[in-house]
Amino acid sequence: MQHYWNLRPNSSSWGPEGTQDNGSMVSIHTLHFSLDYQHVQVPFEITLWITLASLAKIGFHLYNKMPIVVPESCLLMFVGLILGGLICSLNDKSPLVRDSDIFFLYLLPPIVLDAGYFMPAQPFFENIGTILLYVIVGTMWNAFGIGLSLYGICQVKYFNLQDVSLLHNLWYGSLIAALDPVAVLSVFEEIHVNEKLHILVFGESLLNDAVTVLYKLFKYFCGMPSIKPLDILAGIGNFFFFLVGIGGIFTGFLFGMTVAFTTCFTKVICVIEPLFVFLCSYLSYLIAEMLHLSGIVVIIACATSIKHYVEANISQKSHTTIKYFMKIWSSVSDTLMFIFLDVSTIGDNHEWNWPYICFTVIFCLIWRALGILVLTFFISKCHVNTVTRKDQFIIAYGGLRGPICFSLVFLLPEFSRKKLFIAATTVVILFTVIVQTINK
Amino acid sequence: MQHYWNLRPNSSSWGPEGTQDNGSMVSIHTLHFSLDYQHVQVPFEITLWITLASLAKIGFHLYNKMPIVVPESCLLMFVGLILGGLICSLNDKSPLVRDSDIFFLYLLPPIVLDAGYFMPAQPFFENIGTILLYVIVGTMWNAFGIGLSLYGICQVKYFNLQDVSLLHNLWYGSLIAALDPVAVLSVFEEIHVNEKLHILVFGESLLNDAVTVLYKLFKYFCGMPSIKPLDILAGIGNFFFFLVGIGGIFTGFLFGMTVAFTTCFTKVICVIEPLFVFLCSYLSYLIAEMLHLSGIVVIIACATSIKHYVEANISQKSHTTIKYFMKIWSSVSDTLMFIFLDVSTIGDNHEWNWPYICFTVIFCLIWRALGILVLTFFISKCHVNTVTRKDQFIIAYGGLRGPICFSLVFLLPEFSRKKLFIAATTVVILFTVIVQTINK
Repeated sequence: MQHYWNLRPNSSSWGPEGTQDNGSMVSIHTLHFSLDYQHVQVPFEITLWITLASLAKIGFHLYNKMPIVVPESCLLMFVGLILGGLICSLNDKSPLVRDSDIFFLYLLPPIVLDAGYFMPAQPFFENIGTILLYVIVGTMWNAFGIGLSLYGICQVKYFNLQDVSLLHNLWYGSLIAALDPVAVLSVFEEIHVNEKLHILVFGESLLNDAVTVLYKLFKYFCGMPSIKPLDILAGIGNFFFFLVGIGGIFTGFLFGMTVAFTTCFTKVICVIEPLFVFLCSYLSYLIAEMLHLSGIVVIIACATSIKHYVEANISQKSHTTIKYFMKIWSSVSDTLMFIFLDVSTIGDNHEWNWPYICFTVIFCLIWRALGILVLTFFISKCHVNTVTRKDQFIIAYGGLRGPICFSLVFLLPEFSRKKLFIAATTVVILFTVIVQTINK
Repeated sequence: MQHYWNLRPNSSSWGPEGTQDNGSMVSIHTLHFSLDYQHVQVPFEITLWITLASLAKIGFHLYNKMPIVVPESCLLMFVGLILGGLICSLNDKSPLVRDSDIFFLYLLPPIVLDAGYFMPAQPFFENIGTILLYVIVGTMWNAFGIGLSLYGICQVKYFNLQDVSLLHNLWYGSLIAALDPVAVLSVFEEIHVNEKLHILVFGESLLNDAVTVLYKLFKYFCGMPSIKPLDILAGIGNFFFFLVGIGGIFTGFLFGMTVAFTTCFTKVICVIEPLFVFLCSYLSYLIAEMLHLSGIVVIIACATSIKHYVEANISQKSHTTIKYFMKIWSSVSDTLMFIFLDVSTIGDNHEWNWPYICFTVIFCLIWRALGILVLTFFISKCHVNTVTRKDQFIIAYGGLRGPICFSLVFLLPEFSRKKLFIAATTVVILFTVIVQTINK
C-alpha cells in the first residue's frame, strides 16, 4: 500500500532553500518503498518517548495493588534501567536522553508549576520559619558536612583518592546535599503522611533550589587561581541574597499579576485562558533562567499568585482544563525524568570506586539525621514549632535525592574524577528512592 | 536585584559534556550583570510567539464588533505585515518564521485534528460523492487550466516570461489550484453559511491534500531528463491511488482503534486520557509524513474514529479537556500561521512581474468558477445532489488559498523564476483571504 515513487529522496532537499536532488530522480524507474525518517525524527522521538511514559503509567495502574507495595517512581526506574540496557546494547543513544537542557528547560517547569499551584498555601506560610531554617542552615550543614567528611575519606591512602581536592569535595557536597523536589513530590504523594510533615519536607525541597547557587559558587571558586577572603565574603553575601530570593519572588509575582490583569479581558474568548496561564508561567521560568535567578522559586511565586488572583476571573471550564493539564504535564514530565535518569545510568560513564560511593551514601544519611536532630532541638527550644520524634525520623529519612542532582553532576566540567562523582550520585539516588521508600 | 557573579558565561559550556570556561572566570572580580539568552533562546522565542498570538486574539475580541466587519484572519495578516516590517527593518529574521518544517510538522496537525474531530460526520458522508468529484476532477481541472493558461501568457513576448517552461507552469498550477483548509476553516467559521455549503467547501479543502501529490508528481517530472508516456501513466496511476487514500484512511483508523483499545484500561488513571488521544493522533500524522501518505487524510480518519469509539470510554472531564485543548491549539496554530505567512511576505524574495501575477489571480478565479459551474451541471443531471445558483457562487467564491500553498511554493527547488512564483502566490493568498472575505 505504501509503494509509490520516491519523490522525497531526503528531507534535506525539502528545506525552505531546498535544492533539487536531480541525481536520485533521474534513475528512478521502478516503484520502491522509502522512509522519510530524518524529516520527522525530532517530533517523532519526542512523541514516542511521551507515549511510552503514558503506557508505562497506564500499565502500572492496571494492577491496583502494585503502587501500594512499590512506589511508582521505583517501577519507573526499573523500566528506565531495562530501556537503558536496550538502548546501550543497540549502541544508539538517543540524543534526547543525554541533554541536561531538556531536563531544566522542558521537564522541570511543568512539575514545579503543578507543585506550586496545588501547594496548600496556609500550612506552608504557617511553617515558613521552620522550612527556611531547614533550607538555609540545614542545606549548608549538609553540604559542608558531606564535603568535609568526604575530603577526610580521600586522605586515606588505601582508597587511592588523594587527587580529589577539598574544593571538589565541597562542590560535590553542595550538589548532593539538597532534597530533590521531584523525588519528594512523586514519592510523598503516594505514601500519605500528615499535612504538616508533608509541607515541611516538600517546602524544604522546593526552596532548596537555592542550593544550586551554592553549587555555582563552588564552581566559581574552582575556576579561580587563588581564593581571597574577600571573594569568600562576596560569594556568601551573594548566596544569601539569592537564598532570600527577593528577585525570584518578585518576578514570579509580577508574572502572576500580568496573567490576572489579562484574564480580566478574556470573557469573550475564554478558550485562550488556560493557554495564557501556562504561557506566562513558563515565560517567568525562562526569564528567571535567563537572569540566573532560581527558576523554581519564580515559578512557584507565579503559580501561587495565579491561584489567588486568576481563579476568580476565568470560567469553570478553563479552570478544569488548567488543573487537568497541569496534572498531565507534571505526571508525564515526572515519568520521563525517572526513565531518562536510568537510561543515562546505563553506560560507560562511571568510575566504581566503592569506598567513596559507600561513604557518600552513609554521610548523606548521617549528616541529614544529625542536622534534623540539632535543628529541631533549637526549634523546640524557641517554641516556634513542635516536631515529634517520629516526625523527625520521617523528615530525616525523607531526604530523597533525585533527577536534579543527577543533572547537576552531568553539568560538572570535565575533570579526572567526574565519572566517580556520577557513579556516586547514581548510587545515592537509587538508594534513597528505592531502598528508603519501599520500606515506608 | 539581578547583580551577581557571572557563573554561567555562556550556555555552550553547560551541555552534558560541558567544559570549564576558565578564561572568563579568572578575570571576573566585579559584580556584573549578564544575560544567558542563548541558553533559553528556543523555548523563549516559541513561547513569546505564542503569547503574542494569544494577545492578538484577545485584543481582537475586545472590540466585539470588529470580527463581524473584518474576519480575524485578515486582521492577523495585518499584524503579520506590521511584524514582518519590524523584523525586516531590524534585519534580524527569526529562524523560526522561515522554516517550512515548522509549518508542516507543528502548526498544521493541531488545526487538522481539530477540524476532523469537530467535523459533522453525517453531512460529510451524505455529500461524499459531490465532495470527491470537486476534489478529484475539480482540482485537476484547476491545476491544468491555470497551468496551461499561464503557459499561454508566458508566450506573449511583451511580458518577458518566455523562459518559464510548460512543466514549471503546470507545477505552479498544481500548487495554486487547491483550496486551503486552514484559510477555509478560519474564514468560514466566522461567516456562517448553511451546513451543506460549509461541508462541501470544507470537505473539498480537507481532501485536497491529495493535490500535494500532483505537486510532487510535477516535481518528479521536472527532475527527469525526458518524459515518456509510460512515466505519465505510472504517475497518474500513482496520483489516483493516492487520491483514494486507502492507505491514509486505513492508517488513521488503525491509530484511532489503538486509542479506543487503550482507553478501555484508563479508568483508574483517567488524567492520562486526553494526552493519549493527542499523542496517538500526532503519531499517526508523523507516521503518515514518514510513509509519504497524506498526513491530513490520516489525521482526519484518526480523529473521526476517535470521536466515534473513544468518547464512550473516557470520563466527562477528560472529554472537556480534549475539546478545550483541541480548540486552543488549533486556534493558536492558526494565528501563528497567518502571522508567519505575512512575516515571511515582507522581504527581498519577490520578483514583481505584474502581468504574470495579475493573470494568476484572474485565472484562479475564472477556472474555479468554470469548474464549479460545469461540475454542478453534471451533478444536477445525475440527480446526485442539488446545488443552487447562489450556493454555486459561494462555493466558487470560497476558493480561498492560504498558508499551505505558501509553504509549498517555498519548498520549490531554486530556479530562476522561483521568486516570481513566490510573489504570485503571496498576492493570490492576500487577494482571496482579504478581498474575497471582507465582502461576504
